Amino acid sequence: MVRWLAFVEGAERLDPWGAVEIKDYDRLLKVFGIRPFKELIPLLSKAGMEPSHLMMRGIIFGHRDFDKIIEAKIRGERVAVLTGFMPSGKFHFGHKLTVDQLIYLQRNGFKVFVAIADAEASIVRKIRREDAIRIGVEEYIANMIALGLDPKETEFYFQTNRGTPYYRLIQLFSGRVTAAEMEAIYGDLTPSKIMAALTQAADILHVQLEEYGGYKHVVVPVGADQDPHLRLTRDIADRMEGLLALERPASTYHKLQPGLDGKKMSSSRPDSTIFLTDTLEEARRKLMRALTGGRATAEEQRRLGGIPEVCSVYHMDLYHLMPEDSEVRSIYDSCRSGRILCGECKLVAWRKLEKLVEEHQRKLEKAKDIAWSVVEVPRF
Amino acid sequence: MVRWLAFVEGAERLDPWGAVEIKDYDRLLKVFGIRPFKELIPLLSKAGMEPSHLMMRGIIFGHRDFDKIIEAKIRGERVAVLTGFMPSGKFHFGHKLTVDQLIYLQRNGFKVFVAIADAEASIVRKIRREDAIRIGVEEYIANMIALGLDPKETEFYFQTNRGTPYYRLIQLFSGRVTAAEMEAIYGDLTPSKIMAALTQAADILHVQLEEYGGYKHVVVPVGADQDPHLRLTRDIADRMEGLLALERPASTYHKLQPGLDGKKMSSSRPDSTIFLTDTLEEARRKLMRALTGGRATAEEQRRLGGIPEVCSVYHMDLYHLMPEDSEVRSIYDSCRSGRILCGECKLVAWRKLEKLVEEHQRKLEKAKDIAWSVVEVPRF
Repeated sequence: MVRWLAFVEGAERLDPWGAVEIKDYDRLLKVFGIRPFKELIPLLSKAGMEPSHLMMRGIIFGHRDFDKIIEAKIRGERVAVLTGFMPSGKFHFGHKLTVDQLIYLQRNGFKVFVAIADAEASIVRKIRREDAIRIGVEEYIANMIALGLDPKETEFYFQTNRGTPYYRLIQLFSGRVTAAEMEAIYGDLTPSKIMAALTQAADILHVQLEEYGGYKHVVVPVGADQDPHLRLTRDIADRMEGLLALERPASTYHKLQPGLDGKKMSSSRPDSTIFLTDTLEEARRKLMRALTGGRATAEEQRRLGGIPEVCSVYHMDLYHLMPEDSEVRSIYDSCRSGRILCGECKLVAWRKLEKLVEEHQRKLEKAKDIAWSVVEVPRF
Repeated sequence: MVRWLAFVEGAERLDPWGAVEIKDYDRLLKVFGIRPFKELIPLLSKAGMEPSHLMMRGIIFGHRDFDKIIEAKIRGERVAVLTGFMPSGKFHFGHKLTVDQLIYLQRNGFKVFVAIADAEASIVRKIRREDAIRIGVEEYIANMIALGLDPKETEFYFQTNRGTPYYRLIQLFSGRVTAAEMEAIYGDLTPSKIMAALTQAADILHVQLEEYGGYKHVVVPVGADQDPHLRLTRDIADRMEGLLALERPASTYHKLQPGLDGKKMSSSRPDSTIFLTDTLEEARRKLMRALTGGRATAEEQRRLGGIPEVCSVYHMDLYHLMPEDSEVRSIYDSCRSGRILCGECKLVAWRKLEKLVEEHQRKLEKAKDIAWSVVEVPRF
């Protein structure tokens, strides 16, 4: 199995707002009680779900209770998936990783909910309202639709106008957590972080209310750094017993795709990732400059082979560009054996990326129009 | 001027959730920048508002910016008053003190908003939902109507179903306050206290939004112990500049009526106050047992006179039973001069109280039916 080798060791506590790089996924499984995803492959088949390349490659590496969701699906019960995006910056390949999972689940019969986290954007990041709304619709929703998410089968919403029962949950939840618990999970505590955390919990849990469809079997696909939110939300669900019957949400965990500069992908460092709206020229430039696992000299690389595990271009292939296993295996072997050098390998990736970006952008203009029509825009 | 002498000294920081007894109202004026209410008397007359006995007796002793509200009223602009009640326990004479102020302002042309703080009741006090709703309607709203608040000119609402723009304010406000500020005001900090504080700020400020009537000149009459909420809310209003045009709320401050047992009035100590639903027998018993300013023996009292300033019965006269100044002055003089002993004085008060309670309870049954029809009850 191909594994992404960690860049840095450390960081026992995960910080979903920070920029901590997650290292040792095995330890994550051990310390936080996340189950290995691979154990679910037989169950998925039983449910008629062909595992995706993200699952087979260990990119989706862990889960909590996702088996229960699949079992519910096998019993014929309704299942749903929920995720949220902070409407800041531009939509990049890190976001696509999550959207690909939504599309996979949607095609396998899951109802999809997408929160545009504009409340968080304004309270935690101080993003201007009009920007948050435009980015939410034209960057996030539009790109999701262009990637293939079916807007007719997806419920997009802004956190700030989700209605009374949703807000009511936020209020209720505030009485079910202590300052000490939140501090243990998130480090220092501010009113805005508390509000953001409780709002996320409401995002995850509100679809269980009748007002929002009454979906009791909900999975949340997240990056490994988002687990603190899930742990908190699961605890909150338990504590509502007697007042509201809320099931614990299930979750799946994917590895964080390494940025093109070797650090964490982030909109705030444009060269760390490729935006799906980058011009072809720009996308090409970023890919060609990306950090690879090549050696100091061509001679050395031919002799020793490259190190795909630390190569950001290889990870683009692995996550996005080469869904066919044979193809990615062939690149991996060519690199390890020194038969292909980085320049050539980048050109292989570029031909795939160019096609993907071109096709995507062709769909994007129309998707923008659709995007404005499928979500209710908040007033202020 | 008759003044209530403080029982205990101390407590520089006011705790609106605690049971601190407020002592030295003069210091409150100095330390927290509250203005003396009496300076407004000429302005009130100019606005055609005859000052109430609570104002003339210094029970309403302070204000912030209430002069601006009166001036707006003189200019012919719309003015409003807002208050909130936690739906826990039973409606007593401490609550009546606030409702008398609402009625006074309503009769002087103020729009009245009353929040039933069921969100706070459930998150801070863990009161069961069905209890909070029933108490909110049958204890608080019904008693207010029976006391004379005109339900047609009053907007009663439960915090938990006030709608999206209201909740949106809570979210926004969370990004405008720091943990340090809230700690400085409230002492220790929990998620539920933060939520309760921000919810109160939304109560006070949301009526300025167009959705709720767009009332820009709002006064909040509170007990002196509630000032921390007002200070926070005024700061928040300032900080919304650029996003929402919110005016600072004005406030008036009343003294806390001393309990019949000499401590703070509280529903949780039933003998500290008279509930407006007490049977006549019960009300009489409580009044007859109340702490007075009498001396050790009848002889001593005839010689030295009593001390009305520390007498809870005298305060019932002063706050509720004797709106005529001549009457209260006569009782005061009779007590100070030793002409009347406590038993007789209690009987004088009782005759007034009996009439008040009887009349009130006659109106209450009908008021209960009205109460259920004038407020929208939340679902959960």
